[in-house]
Amino acid sequence: MASRGELLYPEDDRLFLEAYLPAAKRLSTDSGVPFVTLTFATSLDSALSLAPGVQTALSGTAIADNPSLNCRIQGVGGYGGEGLTGQPRPVVIDPHGRWQLTSETKILNLARQGRGKAPWIVTAKAPDAENAKLLEEVGGCYIVLEPQAQNSEGKTSIAWLDIMQTIKEKGIDSIMIEGGGIVINSLLSADNASLVNSVIVTIAPTWLGQGGVVVSPPRKESSSLPIARLQRTKWQQLGDDVVLCGTMKA
Amino acid sequence: MASRGELLYPEDDRLFLEAYLPAAKRLSTDSGVPFVTLTFATSLDSALSLAPGVQTALSGTAIADNPSLNCRIQGVGGYGGEGLTGQPRPVVIDPHGRWQLTSETKILNLARQGRGKAPWIVTAKAPDAENAKLLEEVGGCYIVLEPQAQNSEGKTSIAWLDIMQTIKEKGIDSIMIEGGGIVINSLLSADNASLVNSVIVTIAPTWLGQGGVVVSPPRKESSSLPIARLQRTKWQQLGDDVVLCGTMKA
Repeated sequence: MASRGELLYPEDDRLFLEAYLPAAKRLSTDSGVPFVTLTFATSLDSALSLAPGVQTALSGTAIADNPSLNCRIQGVGGYGGEGLTGQPRPVVIDPHGRWQLTSETKILNLARQGRGKAPWIVTAKAPDAENAKLLEEVGGCYIVLEPQAQNSEGKTSIAWLDIMQTIKEKGIDSIMIEGGGIVINSLLSADNASLVNSVIVTIAPTWLGQGGVVVSPPRKESSSLPIARLQRTKWQQLGDDVVLCGTMKA
Repeated sequence: MASRGELLYPEDDRLFLEAYLPAAKRLSTDSGVPFVTLTFATSLDSALSLAPGVQTALSGTAIADNPSLNCRIQGVGGYGGEGLTGQPRPVVIDPHGRWQLTSETKILNLARQGRGKAPWIVTAKAPDAENAKLLEEVGGCYIVLEPQAQNSEGKTSIAWLDIMQTIKEKGIDSIMIEGGGIVINSLLSADNASLVNSVIVTIAPTWLGQGGVVVSPPRKESSSLPIARLQRTKWQQLGDDVVLCGTMKA
């Protein structure tokens, strides 16, 4: 059992989180976008990591982390359960096609072994042929979307609304988003925060210091108000850390 | 009673905080420095305020806030109790002599009315004569200390060790430090964190956005480790906020 790396999940923690997750009955089937839960882990100074691309045992990106993005709780498909029951669809946002897949890429191996669903990769670039082959071999695919106008840093990006609508059209009613600083700050910005339903943040009682990758959304020039605020919060201590759950205030 | 602005303090909250405050028996009388409790309030993106000098209902500075810096809990001196029992000594750190006192300065009026002790102002400049007169009239004083070499921003500052030792020599065994970003970040820096015993942080579930005054200590050039870490933490939810108590990890 241990060799599969499966995890036990305490009932108490499940009950605590459940109020912030989409119950099937609350999912409107005609809203056009999925229920969105944003989750990340920071230090007290809101840093995700010590520097871009550096894995800091707090959070990260697909390129830095080579993540599994599957569910490893005992009893789901691939971890004691049937088929792929309980496994989420991994969706990786890679607008510039930066993620080079290889035969060592963990997420592809897990799909091959029946321990996770095959990933979808959302991009604005024509996919590299080698990458596409590796991805399609395990049943995954690229989703190519139109880029929106360049953002404030002059970079091409894809509108979150496009991504959400596309995912919803493909049958997904609820997504949990993890990310690095660009993803999180863009979702917490005034333009996109209304797309986020729940936020779950783990905070470690440490200061990483100036110069890290921080969660802090861009501020509109004229605004002197907080960008985003959570309501219905619940703070739950776990070891020395805390887990904050809340719903986005409209 | 209400006209005095006195406060009731819940017994539960007192018990929760007490483990992080200096019990008389734990105060070594020969350590040369007081027991230091650092306290502040931030947003989730570690901001004290939206911009320098702007009072943002989270935390602030003497100049922006015109604070009382006294204790207003029912039963202490000036709020139902005898003399100045239970009132702390306000100590304001003002290296550059920026704080202009007037007859409207709240902290002087409270001292005059017997509802707070007279303040001490720590500075590296020769005090302005008008300010000194106003301060001495209520029983306060300036404490002039030698500036240390200019800090990294080219500004004169006073060494925290000097301040702590001077305060201890004057008979104070325990101090609670509130501050703006400069005070807090300098105390959390690698050079000074060992002077801090307990930290109490209130965190509001809001993001103020990029460009605020943030708590994030300076990083040493060569270091890729967290600057400071709390241990023995306790996270206590209060309304939608949380209060984090911890002791500084040596």
